[in-house]
Amino acid sequence: MGTGRLEAFSDGVIAIIITIMVLELKVPHGTSFEELRPVFPVLLSYVLSFIYVGIYWNNHHHMLHLVQTVTGPILWANLHLLFWLSLVPFVTAWMGENQLTTLPVALYGGVLIMAAFAYLILATLIARHEGRDSVFAKAMGRDIKGKVSPVLYGAGIVMAFVQPMISVALYVAVAAIWFIPDRRVERTLGAGS
Amino acid sequence: MGTGRLEAFSDGVIAIIITIMVLELKVPHGTSFEELRPVFPVLLSYVLSFIYVGIYWNNHHHMLHLVQTVTGPILWANLHLLFWLSLVPFVTAWMGENQLTTLPVALYGGVLIMAAFAYLILATLIARHEGRDSVFAKAMGRDIKGKVSPVLYGAGIVMAFVQPMISVALYVAVAAIWFIPDRRVERTLGAGS
Amino acid sequence: MGTGRLEAFSDGVIAIIITIMVLELKVPHGTSFEELRPVFPVLLSYVLSFIYVGIYWNNHHHMLHLVQTVTGPILWANLHLLFWLSLVPFVTAWMGENQLTTLPVALYGGVLIMAAFAYLILATLIARHEGRDSVFAKAMGRDIKGKVSPVLYGAGIVMAFVQPMISVALYVAVAAIWFIPDRRVERTLGAGS
Amino acid sequence: MGTGRLEAFSDGVIAIIITIMVLELKVPHGTSFEELRPVFPVLLSYVLSFIYVGIYWNNHHHMLHLVQTVTGPILWANLHLLFWLSLVPFVTAWMGENQLTTLPVALYGGVLIMAAFAYLILATLIARHEGRDSVFAKAMGRDIKGKVSPVLYGAGIVMAFVQPMISVALYVAVAAIWFIPDRRVERTLGAGS
Repeated sequence: MGTGRLEAFSDGVIAIIITIMVLELKVPHGTSFEELRPVFPVLLSYVLSFIYVGIYWNNHHHMLHLVQTVTGPILWANLHLLFWLSLVPFVTAWMGENQLTTLPVALYGGVLIMAAFAYLILATLIARHEGRDSVFAKAMGRDIKGKVSPVLYGAGIVMAFVQPMISVALYVAVAAIWFIPDRRVERTLGAGS
Repeated sequence: MGTGRLEAFSDGVIAIIITIMVLELKVPHGTSFEELRPVFPVLLSYVLSFIYVGIYWNNHHHMLHLVQTVTGPILWANLHLLFWLSLVPFVTAWMGENQLTTLPVALYGGVLIMAAFAYLILATLIARHEGRDSVFAKAMGRDIKGKVSPVLYGAGIVMAFVQPMISVALYVAVAAIWFIPDRRVERTLGAGS
Repeated sequence: MGTGRLEAFSDGVIAIIITIMVLELKVPHGTSFEELRPVFPVLLSYVLSFIYVGIYWNNHHHMLHLVQTVTGPILWANLHLLFWLSLVPFVTAWMGENQLTTLPVALYGGVLIMAAFAYLILATLIARHEGRDSVFAKAMGRDIKGKVSPVLYGAGIVMAFVQPMISVALYVAVAAIWFIPDRRVERTLGAGS
Repeated sequence: MGTGRLEAFSDGVIAIIITIMVLELKVPHGTSFEELRPVFPVLLSYVLSFIYVGIYWNNHHHMLHLVQTVTGPILWANLHLLFWLSLVPFVTAWMGENQLTTLPVALYGGVLIMAAFAYLILATLIARHEGRDSVFAKAMGRDIKGKVSPVLYGAGIVMAFVQPMISVALYVAVAAIWFIPDRRVERTLGAGS
């Protein structure tokens, strides 16, 4: 099975997730700066989540670029990843409406950590399918970012019960780490061609 | 007519259906565990429906993989399937908000059984178009799962009036049966190539 | 310019329109048949609109199948058609919530007639671009259905002020006329190949 | 990296944005002309935004038509543009519900100016990637419209604090300027082939 429809479907779901979040930006009734103010924390949550979902799309794009065929388990691992990403708008809205209170911030980290694990599972299944000596397995080789992220998310979840501000700082830090698309892939491809 | 746009359109609709359901997860007003609790049954309904829609996408993917051209009736049979799938978010939300009461659970089964029939009609039309000796007709050959599913859904609808818990167990059972993508297709293709 | 992205974008918008309508099916609060009853007229409106949008997708599919390249004006004529189709969920919801009252039924017809004109404009621009002797121009040749539809919609709008039931019957009639995809296209293609 | 998935993803997001706006057209409760009246200013905002988003899609279409490969920064510049476009439904709804009051009209211009800058950044990155002598760089050459637009948006934002009507006139003017798709691209391509 080719990757065409898997990519198209994933693009569709991710496009909807990224756009649906903005629906949570509820239009204020009045027209003063005062009434616009409660929109800002929601907007900031939205910006963070937009970048996160953008990172996932970007890395997903890079990852599948190296893959020729997919199997049933890979299709399901991909759906599993999309499931956790689809919960991002929900936790984004909850966090945005309750300025940095413990539980929403912890749950936001919880969804992020599950998405990170889902991505790891997907990458592992693809690497196994492609074979140990494949371009893919080499490119993913020492996936430091993939291993560090869940640790930072975990720390974020724990810190939410101490000082949610620190959790958000940790989430922003992971986003910053991932912001640059996977150079490893481009480097390996560049070396190969 | 090729299958390209049919696949793209179906992917689009299914992607929206699967993502729109999460919009029903209404953000709780407070930030305590107490206030998060009513979200759980809705979340569980969502997980079940996500898997169901994922199964349909997966099988749809496998099915159209074997098809070269489509006719007008096939386009409409496909839209008919999408229609019933598009009702899944509605019945999911109703079931999730009314913890396992009779009518919502029965209606959920009703939409599932209609979607199953729609899938059967689509598969039958394609098989007829492809011809009796086609790879497709052979692959779909003895479609045991496709015949067992409606029976189990029917049982689920009836049981909803006795004990809705049993209905949900039956729906989960059907999902489990279908979870593994259609080996028949992969086997037939493998044997042919 | 090829038709690839035009088709993909149109598929996306139509897929969203067809799926978003179901969001108007508001989940009833109770779980009795009584409380489910007000959902039915909305559901019926939804079924009619689903078929209408399905017809447009189907014909759009057939039409662009005959086209190789598109121009700027064609892109805009296509967006113009999508604009009117995007208003379908709004008028569907309004008609569904106000069982067959004059103004919603007339407005529903108004959006349908505008969509029909938009489709005509699109078809005319494509025919002009393809040339008088093109397969497309021949296939569209004597577009009886395309000319009859606006007349029936117009009658529907007028009748809404007398007896809205007749308007709905007229809208259903037009849907029935269009239900069968454009044989002319398939016939012409069949004769050509 | 090819442009295929970038185009598909952008198409998806833009299709959702353009269709989601209509969700803001809240269905009136009654069925009289009186109750339909508050829908009109929202509808007019929607028409303006529909045209704007349509212009962006159109130009995006033309721009990427000239591009063969994309880099990581280009992917992010594209997401940045999509981010600002995704805020269009929010400001459209706010402006539509508060007939031409200062702050919503200014914020609408603010989102438009940011989207214009994002488009400029994207075009600049692509031009740099394609090289100074590329078809793309030549086609984009003296981008007068791209330079005039932000100035008019800026004027619109300022004028919102004097007379919001003038701002809206300015926004309509920019839309009119851009309405015709980029002839430069078609001319250059025509000259080259």
